[in-house]
Amino acid sequence: MALAQENCIDKAPKLDDVAAEMLSTDLQDWIMVNGTLEKTFRFRNFHETMSFANAVAYIAHQQDHHPSIDLTFGRCKLTWNTHSAGGLSRNDFICAARVDQLKA
Amino acid sequence: MALAQENCIDKAPKLDDVAAEMLSTDLQDWIMVNGTLEKTFRFRNFHETMSFANAVAYIAHQQDHHPSIDLTFGRCKLTWNTHSAGGLSRNDFICAARVDQLKA
Repeated sequence: MALAQENCIDKAPKLDDVAAEMLSTDLQDWIMVNGTLEKTFRFRNFHETMSFANAVAYIAHQQDHHPSIDLTFGRCKLTWNTHSAGGLSRNDFICAARVDQLKA
Repeated sequence: MALAQENCIDKAPKLDDVAAEMLSTDLQDWIMVNGTLEKTFRFRNFHETMSFANAVAYIAHQQDHHPSIDLTFGRCKLTWNTHSAGGLSRNDFICAARVDQLKA
């Protein structure tokens, strides 16, 4: 099953580096930085950027897993990690895949 | 006229430090950091945080002056500055006052 069709689970465990690297190959241009999964998206204007942030928020609500959203006029950086696991869990990759699907 | 009733203008000039300090006394707990005006707001959950960010976006559209918005589950940091002026202009203080009014 594709990552984007999976749903986040409670108490997802921390992934080891090999597992995280393997999952990251299913994503489009996300980078792993200090135990987080990060990607910057670009838009033509503030309206589009906010609209995207709200679509991401919908996914976050749906999956009960919430990113950091750092946005300016035409740029939105998303950062996922799993605080309770102390790093990256499969939940972060599921949400990243769902965002990629949104943007595709 | 209260700052929150003013509207942003095109090509607002950079304020000197004394003028910026004086205007900041009309605001609630905003801080000036490296030529920007910054404040962090806290909320009970992600829904409230996103809802606040969207209300700020409305002000940004209305005034055609756009902040950086950095948000997580229950926190939203806003940063205003006036790129074209190379620092803080009256526009930043007007938008900050409008956000304070929103949150009051």
